[in-house]
Amino acid sequence: MAEIKIPLSVPDSKKSEYKKNYNQATANTGNLLLIAGDQKVEHLNDDFFGRGIAPEDASPEHLFKIAAGVRGGVLATHLGLISQYASSYPHIPYLVKINGKTNLGQNAEKDSSECWWKTEDVLNFKKQSGLNIVGIGYTVYLGGKFEAQMLSRIAREINVAHQNGLIAVLWVYPRGKNIKEEDIHTIAGGAGVAACLDADFAKVKYPYGSKNAKLTAEKFKEVVLAAGRTKIICVGGQKRNLKEMIKTTKEQMKIAGTHGLAIGRNLHQRPLAEAIKLGNNLSEVIHGPKPKKRSSFLGLF
Amino acid sequence: MAEIKIPLSVPDSKKSEYKKNYNQATANTGNLLLIAGDQKVEHLNDDFFGRGIAPEDASPEHLFKIAAGVRGGVLATHLGLISQYASSYPHIPYLVKINGKTNLGQNAEKDSSECWWKTEDVLNFKKQSGLNIVGIGYTVYLGGKFEAQMLSRIAREINVAHQNGLIAVLWVYPRGKNIKEEDIHTIAGGAGVAACLDADFAKVKYPYGSKNAKLTAEKFKEVVLAAGRTKIICVGGQKRNLKEMIKTTKEQMKIAGTHGLAIGRNLHQRPLAEAIKLGNNLSEVIHGPKPKKRSSFLGLF
Amino acid sequence: MAEIKIPLSVPDSKKSEYKKNYNQATANTGNLLLIAGDQKVEHLNDDFFGRGIAPEDASPEHLFKIAAGVRGGVLATHLGLISQYASSYPHIPYLVKINGKTNLGQNAEKDSSECWWKTEDVLNFKKQSGLNIVGIGYTVYLGGKFEAQMLSRIAREINVAHQNGLIAVLWVYPRGKNIKEEDIHTIAGGAGVAACLDADFAKVKYPYGSKNAKLTAEKFKEVVLAAGRTKIICVGGQKRNLKEMIKTTKEQMKIAGTHGLAIGRNLHQRPLAEAIKLGNNLSEVIHGPKPKKRSSFLGLF
Amino acid sequence: MAEIKIPLSVPDSKKSEYKKNYNQATANTGNLLLIAGDQKVEHLNDDFFGRGIAPEDASPEHLFKIAAGVRGGVLATHLGLISQYASSYPHIPYLVKINGKTNLGQNAEKDSSECWWKTEDVLNFKKQSGLNIVGIGYTVYLGGKFEAQMLSRIAREINVAHQNGLIAVLWVYPRGKNIKEEDIHTIAGGAGVAACLDADFAKVKYPYGSKNAKLTAEKFKEVVLAAGRTKIICVGGQKRNLKEMIKTTKEQMKIAGTHGLAIGRNLHQRPLAEAIKLGNNLSEVIHGPKPKKRSSFLGLF
Amino acid sequence: MAEIKIPLSVPDSKKSEYKKNYNQATANTGNLLLIAGDQKVEHLNDDFFGRGIAPEDASPEHLFKIAAGVRGGVLATHLGLISQYASSYPHIPYLVKINGKTNLGQNAEKDSSECWWKTEDVLNFKKQSGLNIVGIGYTVYLGGKFEAQMLSRIAREINVAHQNGLIAVLWVYPRGKNIKEEDIHTIAGGAGVAACLDADFAKVKYPYGSKNAKLTAEKFKEVVLAAGRTKIICVGGQKRNLKEMIKTTKEQMKIAGTHGLAIGRNLHQRPLAEAIKLGNNLSEVIHGPKPKKRSSFLGLF
Repeated sequence: MAEIKIPLSVPDSKKSEYKKNYNQATANTGNLLLIAGDQKVEHLNDDFFGRGIAPEDASPEHLFKIAAGVRGGVLATHLGLISQYASSYPHIPYLVKINGKTNLGQNAEKDSSECWWKTEDVLNFKKQSGLNIVGIGYTVYLGGKFEAQMLSRIAREINVAHQNGLIAVLWVYPRGKNIKEEDIHTIAGGAGVAACLDADFAKVKYPYGSKNAKLTAEKFKEVVLAAGRTKIICVGGQKRNLKEMIKTTKEQMKIAGTHGLAIGRNLHQRPLAEAIKLGNNLSEVIHGPKPKKRSSFLGLF
Repeated sequence: MAEIKIPLSVPDSKKSEYKKNYNQATANTGNLLLIAGDQKVEHLNDDFFGRGIAPEDASPEHLFKIAAGVRGGVLATHLGLISQYASSYPHIPYLVKINGKTNLGQNAEKDSSECWWKTEDVLNFKKQSGLNIVGIGYTVYLGGKFEAQMLSRIAREINVAHQNGLIAVLWVYPRGKNIKEEDIHTIAGGAGVAACLDADFAKVKYPYGSKNAKLTAEKFKEVVLAAGRTKIICVGGQKRNLKEMIKTTKEQMKIAGTHGLAIGRNLHQRPLAEAIKLGNNLSEVIHGPKPKKRSSFLGLF
Repeated sequence: MAEIKIPLSVPDSKKSEYKKNYNQATANTGNLLLIAGDQKVEHLNDDFFGRGIAPEDASPEHLFKIAAGVRGGVLATHLGLISQYASSYPHIPYLVKINGKTNLGQNAEKDSSECWWKTEDVLNFKKQSGLNIVGIGYTVYLGGKFEAQMLSRIAREINVAHQNGLIAVLWVYPRGKNIKEEDIHTIAGGAGVAACLDADFAKVKYPYGSKNAKLTAEKFKEVVLAAGRTKIICVGGQKRNLKEMIKTTKEQMKIAGTHGLAIGRNLHQRPLAEAIKLGNNLSEVIHGPKPKKRSSFLGLF
Repeated sequence: MAEIKIPLSVPDSKKSEYKKNYNQATANTGNLLLIAGDQKVEHLNDDFFGRGIAPEDASPEHLFKIAAGVRGGVLATHLGLISQYASSYPHIPYLVKINGKTNLGQNAEKDSSECWWKTEDVLNFKKQSGLNIVGIGYTVYLGGKFEAQMLSRIAREINVAHQNGLIAVLWVYPRGKNIKEEDIHTIAGGAGVAACLDADFAKVKYPYGSKNAKLTAEKFKEVVLAAGRTKIICVGGQKRNLKEMIKTTKEQMKIAGTHGLAIGRNLHQRPLAEAIKLGNNLSEVIHGPKPKKRSSFLGLF
Repeated sequence: MAEIKIPLSVPDSKKSEYKKNYNQATANTGNLLLIAGDQKVEHLNDDFFGRGIAPEDASPEHLFKIAAGVRGGVLATHLGLISQYASSYPHIPYLVKINGKTNLGQNAEKDSSECWWKTEDVLNFKKQSGLNIVGIGYTVYLGGKFEAQMLSRIAREINVAHQNGLIAVLWVYPRGKNIKEEDIHTIAGGAGVAACLDADFAKVKYPYGSKNAKLTAEKFKEVVLAAGRTKIICVGGQKRNLKEMIKTTKEQMKIAGTHGLAIGRNLHQRPLAEAIKLGNNLSEVIHGPKPKKRSSFLGLF
């Protein structure tokens, strides 16, 4: 098992709970394979229905079927969806996304997203449902009109999460005029903010389109360093082929020092079997080779 | 009785209460016939007084008389109106609409609607009045300036409702520049948001005006799929004749897979007898044929 | 005594308190003579000092002297004024106006008016002072930038009022571009909103200037019908002579079905004796002829 | 001792506390000499350092030295300054100014000023420090963008103050386009609002520059009348000579019926001895001649 | 040990705790050497990675290494960073910066910064972690659109801090059109506001670029006087050489009467050894010469 540096905001009485959640989230490796299932709000139905998308993706249940089949994956989605489906998928580790917004907002509201649930609601839901809920997720837009209230809110939520042994994953997106969203220095700035907020993981953009992939990964170290003890996971980005994804994820982790991947469209827009295969291949990169006896691996949970 | 998939946000101790409310709301069929009586706020007196409107509709009591006469119908209206009239109509199943706005708002305020009552107020009202209150209703405008606070608020209210065994029905209306309110893909997006919010039913628009009715119903499956285990009911739309309504409702349910209908103007602008007849005909489509012995049906409540 | 339809938001334990307040407010007749004394805020000193205004009106005490002399009148004013003067006028029935704004606001703020006191504060004040406080009053501007928060707030306050046996009177004013404030159909819309908010009385505008007074009263039935079991009282309007006022009030009540009158400037801008005479004449129209033995009437309080 | 009309918002159990505070604030005369020491926030350092200002005024301690030397004066300033200095000046009666803003604000924010402390904080501070804190002070800008929230907030604070036996002094400043801040009719409007808010004293502007001083004082009666039982004190205005100040203050009190004076710059910009002399001369006008035995006067505290 | 003037907002029961924190913060001298480590939020990664910046500065741990090596230094940074690293650096005295914003904000939001944690959260964190947390830090922008809410918020936080024996340090920055941020008179205004807010220390700008350094220090007395018993520390400003820094700091303290220095970029952009040397040299100026036996000094903590 990877050693865990437990933040001091986790009280002694909740340290074993935190470790348990951290280990469940990372398949005991310290690395995270996040199945991003919050896009039904963020992108409405655009990512789930249309040309080039597997018909199975039309139903939200597809996300749960994938997550159930991918070794070590954590399904990040809104509490409502978990509430509706998790009775059929009780073994998945869940990360509850506590905020969200659609892509319909105009002007400043494009960056406005309030908490739908307090961490206390998540804790209550975890208790009453008995589900494997490992923590909370939250998207913060730096530079937008609502930055101040978002930072204030998520600082509170992370604090409550840690007080109760949950982990916290931030989606960190710098915004604003003249901001290049894939500029590494800017991404590093956001990563540093995540560290100051006491996040356990920060999900950030990655400049996938660059010509020299290794140099990019080298430069991306700035992000990992800036985040300090908060671990960096990269977004999966546009749909790419399996081989390409495996390669880039390896480079990110080995060269830049990231600790996993968040994958959404790239996963769920595929038919179930193909999605599960991709997920498990990524898990091998992120969590290491599959243990011989699957049962013993599952015994960790 | 239809099987009910109870969301995990309903605690064990409230599952029988939830089932009871769900069954009362759907006449034990899982399908909903919602009598939309919130337009006295939304449209002021425009829907209730004027040319082509039955004179009886001038008084809000007309809504209660209709609801009392329609088999399996649920009257959705504001708590204030229920407080004023329900002592005379104690047997109607009520859904308390907890927000509302007039049609006078300018600019961004056109999409601004705050909660008038907390779900806790509804629960208290239910307890002290002894009424058949089955749940809460809320209108959310996606894409408006107030989307963030509306989503945050209704997520909380649904959570409180489920914690206490009430059902939650969302009116979901995407808004904004370039939004076509009857575009099926857009409606599907809103339906997915309702699922992420843990709604039990989502009331959405339907493109009634299309030339090929069956093809439309076929395409509308996208909406039903996107909503997952949240059930879709369509708005009743502009005033149409009885035969036409019965036909479309059947198509929606049989082809697209919707679970009922919400009907407002189309019902209450008619004289009482005619309204009750239409309502009962719709109930036959939605809830199935009337049981031989009416008394045994009523015994369910 | 007039029969009172007690809203279901009044719990059983507070029904006798509600009836007592309702009867005190209406001199046991169900009809309301509201002495509107909230204009020191709404119109600053414009209504109280200047040409054509009795010099006595310069002091707020004038309002209390009038109210003390008018049979069955209820003085509606802010808690602060009651706090300052009611020790000298302990027998007046008071309605506490809980919001207010000056006429100095610019732009959207013209329609912005927040609660100064919560209903809980009013209840506490009633208890500690022992005064005859019958309920709360609130002005809502429909269509303004702050409509959403006003509706939300007053719904809460009315609920708290009824929970504790107080009555609630709404001042309902539709606003906005293209709104004609004396258009009957628009006024009816506002009246319907008051019903949905569970108000006991709604104070609305009346088109006093119309040529055919009887026809106007006939048309005004729309407002009374739209309000359902919420009773309508009309504003007193511009200063008119006593005879004219008596006549119009009779028409409003007999033809349109209103339940009383709210009178402000038209009353307090007169010298004390004249104001009391007008008030008592109006009371005769609204509450019926003065009982033979005044003492027995007062015994009701 | 002057008779005190205790507002009904002061509960019986706090009436003696209220009387004590009222008497301490007014040196048992019912008239108030307010040393306005809140300008370190309102005007930053402009009033305290520069040409024509005594060098001693550079330190906030100057305010405390003056207040300690002026018979019957009440020092109105922010809680922070009292917290820092009052251990050295424990005998001064203090009025805690609970809101404040700088003069740097742009646009609508020029009239924006939120409460820094709740009245509960003041009460707690009074209790733990044992200081002679007689009440709270608050500046309200009528007509500004924030009027609604200011009125709402101060109504609450005055209510809490009275519930606990503290007095409340309002600084009332009408603002806005076309508003003449020294127009008596407008000032009277603000005074009426103070009465409706249950203030004990209202500090208002005075048209010092007018040619006919006595006529002005005569006209100013409108303000005193409009305020009802809330007492009016005038601002000290621009720096004027001692003789002129004594004369005007007498006119205000004798002719217009005001109940004291608020003095800031006019006092603290002078060297200590001169300031104390002016203060004591004003006290003689406001509180009446100094008692023969100073000790017996101090015995009141 | 320097005498401490304890504010009256510190209750008797917390006076020894306050003294302990004050002494820890100032190495028993009353003077403060603040290591400003909040720029990972304020300037994102601009101050930590790039040309002219020591590579070690890329990781937030660099700040902790410096603070651990500098005698009498207090590390001011966000709670999240402390939570992540302080288990490795448990002996550093920490000041928790409770608000923050990035440099990406547009328009009015440039001056918008809400509290991330309440002082209660800091107290709880102190208790559960056992760290040497001496107090809270907060940046206030005077003159910005959010001045009113910032002043209101920090007044509350300082009050809670003092109630519990923590010290409070304000970063005070006047803003707005026509404001010269290094104008001494303006800085003095901000210092006075800090005093009215009950701050223990105010961190303010200093006109480093002026030609006559001694004259500047002389003029800067205005700031120190305006702050009263609140002590002034100057920002470190742009990167300057060690000798220059020592000289200016001496002038500030000896001539103007300031009580220490806040240093950020000027410190952490240097390699560790160089940073520690600079820090200790500044400590000698600020806290006086290093005690002969280091162990006895450390014994104070």
